[in-house]
Amino acid sequence: MAKADKINFSTPSGFPEFLPSEKRLELYLLDTIRKVFESYGFTPIETPAVERLEVLQAKGNQGDNIIYGIDPILPPNRQAEKEKAGETGSEARALKFDQTVPLAAYIARHLNKLTFPFARYQMDVVFRGERAKDGRFRQFRQCDIDVVARSQLSLLYDAQMPAIITEIFEAVNIGNFLIRINNRKILTGFFQSVGVAENKIKSCIGIIDNLEKIGELKVKQELEKEGISIEQTQKIIDFIKIDGTVDEVLDKLKHLSCNLPEAEQFGLGVTELETVITGVRNLGVSDKRFCVDLSIARGLDYYTGTVYETTLLGHEALGSICSGGRYEELVGTFLGEKMPGVGISIGLTRLISRLLKAGILNTLSATPAQVMVVNMQEDLMPIYLQVSQQLRQAGINVVTSFDKKGLGKQFQLADKQGIQFCVIIGSEEAAAQKSSLKDLKSGEQVEVELANLAEEVKRRLQ
Amino acid sequence: MAKADKINFSTPSGFPEFLPSEKRLELYLLDTIRKVFESYGFTPIETPAVERLEVLQAKGNQGDNIIYGIDPILPPNRQAEKEKAGETGSEARALKFDQTVPLAAYIARHLNKLTFPFARYQMDVVFRGERAKDGRFRQFRQCDIDVVARSQLSLLYDAQMPAIITEIFEAVNIGNFLIRINNRKILTGFFQSVGVAENKIKSCIGIIDNLEKIGELKVKQELEKEGISIEQTQKIIDFIKIDGTVDEVLDKLKHLSCNLPEAEQFGLGVTELETVITGVRNLGVSDKRFCVDLSIARGLDYYTGTVYETTLLGHEALGSICSGGRYEELVGTFLGEKMPGVGISIGLTRLISRLLKAGILNTLSATPAQVMVVNMQEDLMPIYLQVSQQLRQAGINVVTSFDKKGLGKQFQLADKQGIQFCVIIGSEEAAAQKSSLKDLKSGEQVEVELANLAEEVKRRLQ
Repeated sequence: MAKADKINFSTPSGFPEFLPSEKRLELYLLDTIRKVFESYGFTPIETPAVERLEVLQAKGNQGDNIIYGIDPILPPNRQAEKEKAGETGSEARALKFDQTVPLAAYIARHLNKLTFPFARYQMDVVFRGERAKDGRFRQFRQCDIDVVARSQLSLLYDAQMPAIITEIFEAVNIGNFLIRINNRKILTGFFQSVGVAENKIKSCIGIIDNLEKIGELKVKQELEKEGISIEQTQKIIDFIKIDGTVDEVLDKLKHLSCNLPEAEQFGLGVTELETVITGVRNLGVSDKRFCVDLSIARGLDYYTGTVYETTLLGHEALGSICSGGRYEELVGTFLGEKMPGVGISIGLTRLISRLLKAGILNTLSATPAQVMVVNMQEDLMPIYLQVSQQLRQAGINVVTSFDKKGLGKQFQLADKQGIQFCVIIGSEEAAAQKSSLKDLKSGEQVEVELANLAEEVKRRLQ
Repeated sequence: MAKADKINFSTPSGFPEFLPSEKRLELYLLDTIRKVFESYGFTPIETPAVERLEVLQAKGNQGDNIIYGIDPILPPNRQAEKEKAGETGSEARALKFDQTVPLAAYIARHLNKLTFPFARYQMDVVFRGERAKDGRFRQFRQCDIDVVARSQLSLLYDAQMPAIITEIFEAVNIGNFLIRINNRKILTGFFQSVGVAENKIKSCIGIIDNLEKIGELKVKQELEKEGISIEQTQKIIDFIKIDGTVDEVLDKLKHLSCNLPEAEQFGLGVTELETVITGVRNLGVSDKRFCVDLSIARGLDYYTGTVYETTLLGHEALGSICSGGRYEELVGTFLGEKMPGVGISIGLTRLISRLLKAGILNTLSATPAQVMVVNMQEDLMPIYLQVSQQLRQAGINVVTSFDKKGLGKQFQLADKQGIQFCVIIGSEEAAAQKSSLKDLKSGEQVEVELANLAEEVKRRLQ
């Protein structure tokens, strides 16, 4: 067969693809995350990979993201087909770069068919022209939940988020993590109270958000660049470094809110934070799983209240593994309606690749098959097929070996893929309605009545 | 809040999106299909949505598909960022239009990390510039399985396909379906034996493949256009119209293969078909689920042996709901290696939209939530949260009602979303560690000890 010459068949830079053992891990994580999301009543949606460019660029939501436009390609001699298919590319379309702008569009498109508060999850892939290195990808899967209301949205929805984060990361057992909670109103209020000009506040919040990345000195310098005085800067630094147990920090904040000048926002933020923390505790989340961290702000300037980041302890370099917060004017964009919402996002593709590198997660076996029915005698194939079906009907994943290979080779093939059990049936076993069940892990081999085979395999799989 | 004016926020034509009740149906179907695929040991892979254009166009596999190229978009003043991110668009990339070419690339990319025969499933979305009507979409999800070998591939893999199709469509209960099986070698051999020139055979097969669509007369005309004589045409028509039970057709074919001139291909095809049918029966597939249909050819010219189509009886207009076949020179493209394979594909997005329209499938409820813990007294919220968690830990999907609405309104909200049960706890119940469990379907309301609530809900959910 002729080789398609000189074709570079590698994936385009930044577009990742998993081996089966890695993809199976991703599916396991997706199943786990979905189960937790659904247990809180979040319902699935999926928006197309492609939106109108004007939608993706609405109110400058493109941010720093490089968007990929799409356009039909055809050899010149087939341009006519484009017209025929209405694919003249007149209408600019592009690949979605996040799931928030599409959520806003989805709500606008289906407003009257949705019930509010609308709690949805979405686990689609998104596309960004990022520099394809440092574990950054140009196509990656995000697992998002958001609850959106048309008027008021209870702070208890904010409180559910840390409970959901906790359940997910405990379920997938990735070790010790800490959810860091803050409220943007507290920061805004504090900046007001120390006399930072309104028009400087957002940029200042952006700067202190980088404390961990760039360090205290650099933060001071950047704040001064913004025209913040040395005394103001010192107050700010002292403030965001407040720490202690959740209750200690809350007490300090309540004390401050009584003494700070013109700190209406501040007081409001503290009350919100306290309500959220109480909810988190009533939901049974252990105090060791979360803290109040006044330096957390989330760069994105659409957050207006609660904000979250999640740190994997001992692996701080990974950055936040699940973040989010409360916003007011995001998903109502296309309707011109205020729609308060709160949500979190897990950047799954990046998380998997980094947790695998760090050895925190391990890949699964290369196949879901749990049993191989080996091919010992061609003439017994009808029995092999029948036994395979019998096992499948019992919920066991089975490959039947059709190849005319030696038993040893077949065992090797099974073992290489992580198939634990082989079922061996020769003419004597067949005549006696029996089989030999070989455990490739332990090497143990036992004789089992065909009638009890499924049961026996299931028992040993546990 | 200012409305983002004049923005057309509708989905681009041909890019579908589901309501939650529809997306939940899709997930249910995906879960079911995946379960069956995995029970036969098919392992999941996912290839990126984006490939190098030269890969997608390798050996003209583009066919009639209009491919979408992708290119980074940035406002002129930010072009520099493209360079920075290595996104200068120098390297042509495009969205995959099927999962076969990417499978070939995947195998070439990971050859030495895969075990053969390589049995994989893939349920990604693909993109085509189709005319966006008649239930055709420009983005749609395909559920594909293929088994690929590096040398020989047993015909029993072909036999597994109808078993898998049967299990899937019986599981999702869409009514009576018939899997029509043929072998391209039989057609090729028959055309040879009636003296059709080698270079005409593929186009003639393409023509008879349209018999159902265009009718006998049109087929005759087109064959004659190809220079096939009236006698040859008549022989061909009589042949592809051979019918009867599976065994009757097989007998006629075996009889023919003894009498046809120079019918080596024909005889080989008949032997292959017989082997496959025997396997299908040994796998326990009932004769009512499949037939031999000599007019089935599959347009795609890469099929070389077994071919399948699946017809939903009583809804023939839907066309084939699951098709596939055996090929020799497809997935080895990038390696210049012969790799025999056999696979099937379900065009899920199209299938769902058409089965919904035809009323064969129904959407699910708008939310996975099964229980709403209603908000009767704000001060009892800690108990509501605690009870909600207790139910979730028992595997029940729960929404806690945080809104300060009347009970009636809360019941309405639950019912509207298809939540069957409401849990009502007032101060008396709380004091007595009890709750009222209301079934919104039956209207029945019973008093249940909080300690037994999860158990009772699970019992009633069955």
